Amino acid sequence: MSRPNPLRDPQDRRIPRIAGPCALVMFGVTGDLASKKLMPAIYDLANRGLLPPGFALVGFARRDWDTEDFAEVVHNAVKANARTPFREEVWKQLSDGIRFVAGELDDDAAFDRLKQTIDELDESRGTGGNHAFYLSIPPGLFPNVVGQLRSHGMAEQDHDRWSRVVIEKPFGHDLKSAQELNDIVSTAFPASSVFRIDHYLGKETVQNLLALRFANQLFEPVWNNNYVDHVQITMAEDIGIGGRAGYYDGIGAARDVIQNHLLQLLALTAMEEPTSFEASQLRAEKQKVLAAARPPRDLGLHTARGRYTAAWAGGEKVGGYLDEPRIPADSTTETYAAIRVDIDNRRWAGVPFYLRAGKRMPRRVTEIALGFKQAPHLPFDETDTAELGYNALVMRIQPDEGVTLRFGAKVPGTQMEIREVNMDFAYGGSFTESSPEAYERLILDVLLGDPPLFPQHEEVELSWRILDPILDYWASLGTPPDDYEAGTWGPKSADEMLARDGFAWRRP
Amino acid sequence: MSRPNPLRDPQDRRIPRIAGPCALVMFGVTGDLASKKLMPAIYDLANRGLLPPGFALVGFARRDWDTEDFAEVVHNAVKANARTPFREEVWKQLSDGIRFVAGELDDDAAFDRLKQTIDELDESRGTGGNHAFYLSIPPGLFPNVVGQLRSHGMAEQDHDRWSRVVIEKPFGHDLKSAQELNDIVSTAFPASSVFRIDHYLGKETVQNLLALRFANQLFEPVWNNNYVDHVQITMAEDIGIGGRAGYYDGIGAARDVIQNHLLQLLALTAMEEPTSFEASQLRAEKQKVLAAARPPRDLGLHTARGRYTAAWAGGEKVGGYLDEPRIPADSTTETYAAIRVDIDNRRWAGVPFYLRAGKRMPRRVTEIALGFKQAPHLPFDETDTAELGYNALVMRIQPDEGVTLRFGAKVPGTQMEIREVNMDFAYGGSFTESSPEAYERLILDVLLGDPPLFPQHEEVELSWRILDPILDYWASLGTPPDDYEAGTWGPKSADEMLARDGFAWRRP
Repeated sequence: MSRPNPLRDPQDRRIPRIAGPCALVMFGVTGDLASKKLMPAIYDLANRGLLPPGFALVGFARRDWDTEDFAEVVHNAVKANARTPFREEVWKQLSDGIRFVAGELDDDAAFDRLKQTIDELDESRGTGGNHAFYLSIPPGLFPNVVGQLRSHGMAEQDHDRWSRVVIEKPFGHDLKSAQELNDIVSTAFPASSVFRIDHYLGKETVQNLLALRFANQLFEPVWNNNYVDHVQITMAEDIGIGGRAGYYDGIGAARDVIQNHLLQLLALTAMEEPTSFEASQLRAEKQKVLAAARPPRDLGLHTARGRYTAAWAGGEKVGGYLDEPRIPADSTTETYAAIRVDIDNRRWAGVPFYLRAGKRMPRRVTEIALGFKQAPHLPFDETDTAELGYNALVMRIQPDEGVTLRFGAKVPGTQMEIREVNMDFAYGGSFTESSPEAYERLILDVLLGDPPLFPQHEEVELSWRILDPILDYWASLGTPPDDYEAGTWGPKSADEMLARDGFAWRRP
Repeated sequence: MSRPNPLRDPQDRRIPRIAGPCALVMFGVTGDLASKKLMPAIYDLANRGLLPPGFALVGFARRDWDTEDFAEVVHNAVKANARTPFREEVWKQLSDGIRFVAGELDDDAAFDRLKQTIDELDESRGTGGNHAFYLSIPPGLFPNVVGQLRSHGMAEQDHDRWSRVVIEKPFGHDLKSAQELNDIVSTAFPASSVFRIDHYLGKETVQNLLALRFANQLFEPVWNNNYVDHVQITMAEDIGIGGRAGYYDGIGAARDVIQNHLLQLLALTAMEEPTSFEASQLRAEKQKVLAAARPPRDLGLHTARGRYTAAWAGGEKVGGYLDEPRIPADSTTETYAAIRVDIDNRRWAGVPFYLRAGKRMPRRVTEIALGFKQAPHLPFDETDTAELGYNALVMRIQPDEGVTLRFGAKVPGTQMEIREVNMDFAYGGSFTESSPEAYERLILDVLLGDPPLFPQHEEVELSWRILDPILDYWASLGTPPDDYEAGTWGPKSADEMLARDGFAWRRP
């Protein structure tokens, strides 16, 4: 039933997985992500005792900093954003392994210094020749960095020491650019050394989806088209594009989150049971179901896109997308996207998966909802069940992580009247353990070389194959997306898209 | 899918079912049940507008009371125990229809006066010749009353007016006495006019069991021996026998509650789906599954009985059963009974149903728990699932009525570790409607002639057929039941009984 995990003490399953000696080299240390998420996550891992004594953190940036300056930046980021309490002795141990290398990405001498720095750390700090390169930089800069790492011998590995590269979404802009990006990374790193970060996959409830489906006997029997009649996967944000206009325009909701987060959630929801959670087996199942997934046949009827307009939302006047700074007046970028995906296999044939993502929605919520068919026969008077909707199993990813089961129950009283009620499980209320941040889990997994939670290029490519026809169709229309008022659940066309199939979007 | 219900306005399903004109004649009005439950329930029905203007309440007892005395007794009982607020105008309307007839059960003249009284009410109050006779008296007195009602023409009915008799458990002491009791009642009343009160069936969650199973698509697919590996039905009381020694000794836990409440719960849990909840169809399904249920083959291995002994429980010293007043030293009455029931049909073959009932348990709780098999394959490391038990669906009948689903979820943290968690639904928290008392529902159903919640004689007889061999076996042993300390979950023999089958009792 199971293999021994060499990283875990078989005598005591509570012994945590601790990374071996290594250095983590970060490109893009001056960015928001680095200070808000990555540096705090590294400290939290250290504080939880999950980093080895032989750990080093090397920053690389075009800044006139020395190591002390960089240590100060990390210190401030940790103080401001770490999840766990600040402890001086942990910081001392961590900061002793901090280094900084200043330079441009096309500066050979800077990469010489980087190589010297990590070689020196291998000696002085005992990082053992193991190096992870975290590319928290725009994809356009990848060729530079990857080329430099290769030409300076930093991508080399053998059975004694490893070299890994970590990249963040977006993994390309469409299928073609994703392939090009992958070709570049592949010149220096084998597929097994490339870690694509989709931070959604590091979230607890995404992993709990696997536990829920496969550790229980209750759910899997109804997890198919005999019982499920449709699935809704929602990622709603209440904020607008904020300061991200430069990134967002020309990208839009579908590329920004459906291509990665939502299609990964679809894959985890719809895939067959893997034999184990070993990376290759998990990937095989995800790839299999993504290969069976396809865009809807009628793109006009089964996709919808929207763009928020100015409105009063949450007690304040909110500008429309076109009012945001630096958005061109002729933009056709969607801030809301809804698509139907069909899965051509025995388990899911006939069950539409509806994916939607939007900004300026009424609330921030990410969830996966399985809608079940009504019971084939109801031994009640018709009037008893007038308020009976459909059973639903909802996995709430954020906020309020948990699981909700919606089912029909009798309304108290002397009549048999059935109404929908919710049965709830909340992670927060049920466990005293607090959830690590997604980045803690993912960075640790990179250092451990534990790849199940990282999508491989094949999955990225399969996701673009689903999305490309939809994006092409939208572009071919030459019209802007449909309007929806800020603070509402998207354009009317999205409601009509579901109504045509006999369903309605959840209002979570 | 449904028939129109003639008792309900098809235009507005919220119009409540209101009883038609009738008189309710109560025997046993001086008893505890009458003042604590029946009289308050009648007032609450009146207060909720569910009794017609043409309603009368007639008391019959061996007391030197007149109608005013009896009205005072009812008034005090209502003031003390009604669920809904006291309103003078409701009481006025109700009390105008109150009458009292004093007399012995073998006094022909008294029954003449009773006949005159209800005839007079038919005229003055407009009760329309419809009469329900509630026999809240020991079964030994039934022949007297039933004989008198028949000989005085009060059991007669035609298509214009009805006559019904209501009896309370115990429905006999064993199969033979139950048949004799039924023969007596049958001399005056046809089966369709006999209403057997099992107040457990009037409880909201028992009815909700029907809604849960049959209004939803989620549960029925796993409601069988492919997924369920055993069922536990528990009725635990924290009190001892109190002042009921005279009734309880010689009866015991099995006759007191397993024969009626728990086997009815078993029937509702295990029965096939009826075409509708029309009484005859519901009964047909209950009878079918009770006929398929049988006592265990090895009565020594699969039954257990216990008797509480003195102990410190709940912070006070509690006497043992033999210390209770008027219990003979050589009593062999059990205060705890656990039995295994097997159901020989396609749905349940191989799934043991364990029924237990006990007094002086650690807490008061009634519940039905379906235990599910473990998933056939767990794609986790063995250590990940060390704390994983089994999925369970628990229907809580009292207190805290609701539904709990126990399933495995991932423990927050960087490892995949699965632990059992509970998902909860509480009636109290989900509905603003307050639950009527079981007796309100049942009395209203008697007056409406709506029989689905009342077991018929066939079910009573089938239940005794299951219990008789067990009771005979226990009697044949000639030994007292096993000891268990007051405030514990029963004798060691009961734990061993389940352990032999590879299960353990829940500690709810």
